Amino acid sequence: MRIYDVIDDKRNKKALSKEQIDFWIKGVVDGSVADYQSAALLMAIAINGMTDEETFYLTSAMAESGDTVDLSAYGDRTVDKHSSGGVGDSTSFIVIPVMAALGRVCAKMSGRGLGHTGGTLDKLEAIDGVTTAIDEKAFYAQIEKTRLVIAGQTKDVCPADKILYALRDVTATVESIPLIAASIMSKKLAAGAKNIILDVKCGKGAFMHDLKSAEKLARLMVETGRRAGRNVSALITDMDEPLSDYIGNSLEVEGAIEVLKGNTDCPLYKVAKALCVGLLDYEGAEKDVDNAIKSGTALEKFRSMLIAQGAKEDVLDKPLCRAKCKIEIFSEKRGYVKSVDAMKAARVVLALGGGRNKKEDSILPHVGLKFNVRRGDRIEEDGLIATMYFDRYEDVVYAKDVLDAVAFSDKDPGRKDPILKIIK
Amino acid sequence: MRIYDVIDDKRNKKALSKEQIDFWIKGVVDGSVADYQSAALLMAIAINGMTDEETFYLTSAMAESGDTVDLSAYGDRTVDKHSSGGVGDSTSFIVIPVMAALGRVCAKMSGRGLGHTGGTLDKLEAIDGVTTAIDEKAFYAQIEKTRLVIAGQTKDVCPADKILYALRDVTATVESIPLIAASIMSKKLAAGAKNIILDVKCGKGAFMHDLKSAEKLARLMVETGRRAGRNVSALITDMDEPLSDYIGNSLEVEGAIEVLKGNTDCPLYKVAKALCVGLLDYEGAEKDVDNAIKSGTALEKFRSMLIAQGAKEDVLDKPLCRAKCKIEIFSEKRGYVKSVDAMKAARVVLALGGGRNKKEDSILPHVGLKFNVRRGDRIEEDGLIATMYFDRYEDVVYAKDVLDAVAFSDKDPGRKDPILKIIK
Repeated sequence: MRIYDVIDDKRNKKALSKEQIDFWIKGVVDGSVADYQSAALLMAIAINGMTDEETFYLTSAMAESGDTVDLSAYGDRTVDKHSSGGVGDSTSFIVIPVMAALGRVCAKMSGRGLGHTGGTLDKLEAIDGVTTAIDEKAFYAQIEKTRLVIAGQTKDVCPADKILYALRDVTATVESIPLIAASIMSKKLAAGAKNIILDVKCGKGAFMHDLKSAEKLARLMVETGRRAGRNVSALITDMDEPLSDYIGNSLEVEGAIEVLKGNTDCPLYKVAKALCVGLLDYEGAEKDVDNAIKSGTALEKFRSMLIAQGAKEDVLDKPLCRAKCKIEIFSEKRGYVKSVDAMKAARVVLALGGGRNKKEDSILPHVGLKFNVRRGDRIEEDGLIATMYFDRYEDVVYAKDVLDAVAFSDKDPGRKDPILKIIK
Repeated sequence: MRIYDVIDDKRNKKALSKEQIDFWIKGVVDGSVADYQSAALLMAIAINGMTDEETFYLTSAMAESGDTVDLSAYGDRTVDKHSSGGVGDSTSFIVIPVMAALGRVCAKMSGRGLGHTGGTLDKLEAIDGVTTAIDEKAFYAQIEKTRLVIAGQTKDVCPADKILYALRDVTATVESIPLIAASIMSKKLAAGAKNIILDVKCGKGAFMHDLKSAEKLARLMVETGRRAGRNVSALITDMDEPLSDYIGNSLEVEGAIEVLKGNTDCPLYKVAKALCVGLLDYEGAEKDVDNAIKSGTALEKFRSMLIAQGAKEDVLDKPLCRAKCKIEIFSEKRGYVKSVDAMKAARVVLALGGGRNKKEDSILPHVGLKFNVRRGDRIEEDGLIATMYFDRYEDVVYAKDVLDAVAFSDKDPGRKDPILKIIK
C-alpha cells in the first residue's frame, strides 16, 4: 500500500477502507507518512467528506494509536462527558460529582483552554494547591479511592490526533465534521468509559454556529461511539449566551460550587442535570440527580476529589477567586436584558489574561466576569450588570466592553431554554 | 495576510486574488509557508479548481519567483516549444534546427525524462561529447553565435515550481489542469521567447488520456501565455502510438537526423512541421519548412549546435546508437498492424534501463527500440517487427514484450493523422 494512492482515492471522492485508514494513521505516528501528505489528505477529507463508516475507522485507528485507559474493573458503571467548548461552561464540576454520588465511576481526562473557550484543567488548577498532572499509578489509585478524578492525559493518549490536530490548525482543515467527530471520539474511546454524554454547543460563542451542523456533528459522534460499543447520547445546547453568570477560571469553579450547594435555579444546572440524566438513562433519574445535590453528597464528592488532587480541607468554605482588583459595572440604560453575548464576554476574559491566544501562553487564573443579569431580567438605570475581576490596573478599560456585551430591549424577551435538542 | 486565510478561501471555493497568490508563492520560496500548508492548498486547488485569471496569476508568480532568460536583444524572432511528454517524440531536434535555419532564435531549456517519457537532455547527452550543462555566459554566447541551443536550466529558473512540483508528486495533486498549465507556462515565460508552440499529447502513452482534457489544458496554456503577452498556439497530437519508429535516447536523435536528412514521410515530421508552421504563423510557411530540410540548412544548423555543445565534427556521419546487443524481432502472425502501443513500448525501454523510475536513477543511453512497422502496414509471418537494442544480456527476455506491444488485424486499419487538433 502507498499513501499516495490513499490520498488519490480520497481526492477522487472514494470511500477509504479500514486498511487504508489504519495504514495512514500508523504512518502518521511512526513518521513514514510526511506532514505534507497528511495535510493533503486532510484537505481532501475536509472538502470531499467521509462516510460514517470511514469516520468510525478513523476514530478507532486514532484511539488505538497510543495508550488507553483500562476501566474494565468497573464494568458498566464508568461514565464520561465531553463538551465541544463553551463560555461559562463548568458543567463537569457538577456532572462528575453527581455521578460519583450516584455510584458511578468518573475518570475524566480534560484539556486546557485555547482562544475564547475555557479549559477544565485551567479552571481546576485555579484552586490553591490543586494539580491535574497526575501519573498513571496515582490516577488509578484515586479512582479506586474516590471514584472520581479530573486530570490531564496520564499517558500518551491518541498521539495521531495530536499530530493531525496541530496540522489541521495551520492548514484550514479544522472545520470538518468527520474530522472533528473523529478527534473528539478517539479521545473518548481511549479514555475507557462505557457511558458517554456529549454536549455539543451551538451559537455565536461556539464552534458550531447553526443547529443543523451541530446536530450533524452530534449524530455522527453518537453513531461512531455506538459502533465502538459504547452507550453514547448527546445534547445540543445554546451558546449564544454564556451558560453561567461566572466566566473565568476560578470564578467558574465558584459558579459550579454554588450549584452543588443548592442554588440550582440557573441554566448551568439545567444543562448539567440533563447531562447526568443522559448518562443515567433510566426512569426517575432526574429525581436522583436533584437528591444528590440536595443531600450534599455531590458537594462532598467534589470536595474529596479536590482534596485528593491537592486542595486543603476547607477548600469549599471560602471564595476561590483572588483577583487583585474588582469593579462593579452599572447599567447606563433601563429595560429588559435581551441578550448577553457569549463571544463578547469571552473576549473580555481573554483580554484580561484569563485565556490563551497561543498554546504556550500562561494565564491569570482569577480574572473574569460575574454577571448579575441574564436574558429576560428587568434592569433599571444604574442597576448592577456585572462585576469584573482583574489583576492589571490598566485592564479596567475593558469594563466598557462588558457593557457592550449586554443588549437591552423594551419588551421582555423571556427566558430561553439552553437545551436545544436531545439526541439519543 | 495569513496563508491560513488563503488556504481557507480556496477550500471554500473562492477565487484567490493576485495578492494572495503572490503572497503564497513568495512564501514557498522564502520558506515562510510550510510544505504542509502548500500541500493543503494544492489539494484544495486540485479539487476546487482555479479560474483562468487565477491560473495566470499563479503562472506569473512562479515565472517571477527566480531567474529569467533575457532574449530581448532578439526582439520578436525568439521561439520556443514545449511537449507535454510523449514516446518516441524527438520533434525538438527537428523544430529547433528548422527554425534556426529560417532565421529564428531558439534558446530552449529542457528537462530530463521520468517514468515512461523521455527527456530532451538525456537524448542529447546520449551523443558522444555533448553536454547540456551550460553556464549562463556560454548559453548567451552560443545563442549569439549559432542562434540555437538546447540546455538544462542555466540559473535558478522557477524555484517555486520546483518546490511545488516535488510536493504535488507525493501528494496526488499532479493531475490538475490549472496546476499543470501553470507549471509548464511559468517555465516558458521565464525562458523568455516571444513565440511559443505547445504540443499537448493525448492518448494511452500521454498524461492526458482524452481529447477533452487535452484540449482544456491546451486552451488554458494558450490563454495564459497570451495574457502574459506572448504569441502562443498549440497542437493536440496522438500518443496512443509512438510518434516515431525510434524509441530510446540516442535512437531518438538518430530518428530526428533521418528526418533532417530528408526522410520526411513519417508522423514525426508531420508533427514537427505543424509545430514549425504554428511558430511561423504566415501564409506559405509550410513550404519554407520543407525547404529548410531539403536544402540541408536545418541539418547543418543541428550539426553546428551539437558541435558548439561538445560533439565532434563528424557527429552526423555515423550511427549514434552504440548498444552492446541487438536482437531482431520477427512476427509470429500475419496481417495488418492495427496498432503499436506507446505505453507498452515505453515500458520495454524503461525496463532496458533507458529511462528513470526515480529522479536519481542513471540511465543507459543507447538501449531502445527501432520499429520496422507502423499502423496500417501489411506484415507476413516472420516479417521484421522491430530491433531491440540493449546492454545487459539478460534483458533479451523483453523481446516478447515488444511483440506484445503490436496488435494485428485482418483488415487494413488505415493510417491515423497524428495531429488531432490545432488550437490558435
